[in-house]
Amino acid sequence: MAKELDFYFDFSSPYGYLASKRIDAIAREFGRIVRWRPILLGVVFKVTGQTPLVSQKLRGPYHERDLARTARRLGIPFRLPEPFPFAATHASRGFYWLQESDNDQAVQFAHAVFDRAFVEGKIVQSAEDVTEVGATIGVDRDRLAQAIARPDIKDKLRQEVDRAIERGVFGSPFIFADEEPFWGNDRLEDVREWLRRGGW
Amino acid sequence: MAKELDFYFDFSSPYGYLASKRIDAIAREFGRIVRWRPILLGVVFKVTGQTPLVSQKLRGPYHERDLARTARRLGIPFRLPEPFPFAATHASRGFYWLQESDNDQAVQFAHAVFDRAFVEGKIVQSAEDVTEVGATIGVDRDRLAQAIARPDIKDKLRQEVDRAIERGVFGSPFIFADEEPFWGNDRLEDVREWLRRGGW
Repeated sequence: MAKELDFYFDFSSPYGYLASKRIDAIAREFGRIVRWRPILLGVVFKVTGQTPLVSQKLRGPYHERDLARTARRLGIPFRLPEPFPFAATHASRGFYWLQESDNDQAVQFAHAVFDRAFVEGKIVQSAEDVTEVGATIGVDRDRLAQAIARPDIKDKLRQEVDRAIERGVFGSPFIFADEEPFWGNDRLEDVREWLRRGGW
Repeated sequence: MAKELDFYFDFSSPYGYLASKRIDAIAREFGRIVRWRPILLGVVFKVTGQTPLVSQKLRGPYHERDLARTARRLGIPFRLPEPFPFAATHASRGFYWLQESDNDQAVQFAHAVFDRAFVEGKIVQSAEDVTEVGATIGVDRDRLAQAIARPDIKDKLRQEVDRAIERGVFGSPFIFADEEPFWGNDRLEDVREWLRRGGW
């Protein structure tokens, strides 16, 4: 079985979105499988004392500029959803429910969530937002709505977030290649190089 | 006259040190002159509410690892000084005093400060530390000691820090290429590309 790359992200993270467009190609290049793992940065930030980037003085305006500039350089469509950031709890639960039965469909759903947020500029926050996105890839609205309210699915997301914090994840995107941690869309070239050389 | 690249950094910033080894070559490639501008992140952090990276939960251990890993990939010697971070007020004042009469010597001094901190692993904090570094490049100890106590030199540093904050500088290294802001050693390739294409 192919080795995995762990890809942690928050659906509300713009740098996570940019990485989501690139991570699969890097994994394929080295015969790896990407393990997509949505988490909630809001919970992580309670541990680290951080606040969302875009709301920070000086840092916020810079990062809005850097995001647009980085997206242009990479040729990836990009806009910030309004309002921003949004709470991705429901979307993340929907992902883990889909992943239980079909990982490919879950990844397709993840791309659809990101595209609604960062291409169309609409938040994916409410249960209705999530079922609407699911419908675009053929997921039954009622089954998805019921699933994201299930206690075991809520537990699954909580466990993933707790495990991420245990592993040292403090931002999005955050990638592990053979337990080596890489934070940020701007470390994807390092991930590629790490896989190519087997470390350095 | 050649156009300038503004290179803001804190002498106590390890990513600033890494960038200091690379910025001159990038500038030369495009006929630019680097304007070295030491600042004090401690003052900047009072505005942004940030804290020093290495002391942060989860983020600290990751960045120690990322620094060592990035230095290895770039082939740059690196260690963290003890204790870390240190206050670079005296070193920064020494730099601006030297720059008044000889920019090249000031840059030579900046490299010597960075090397003592991040190659030898010794802090450059006290007036004695600073005059010791100065002596290694032929600067008279007494003149340097007197200069860093001068009110006009203290004012110069304060003005540079204030101006940096006005321009949106919130970290180190921080580079302006034709007023376009770039934060981080990991944006140096973007700076190069920006100069090559004249923006994108």
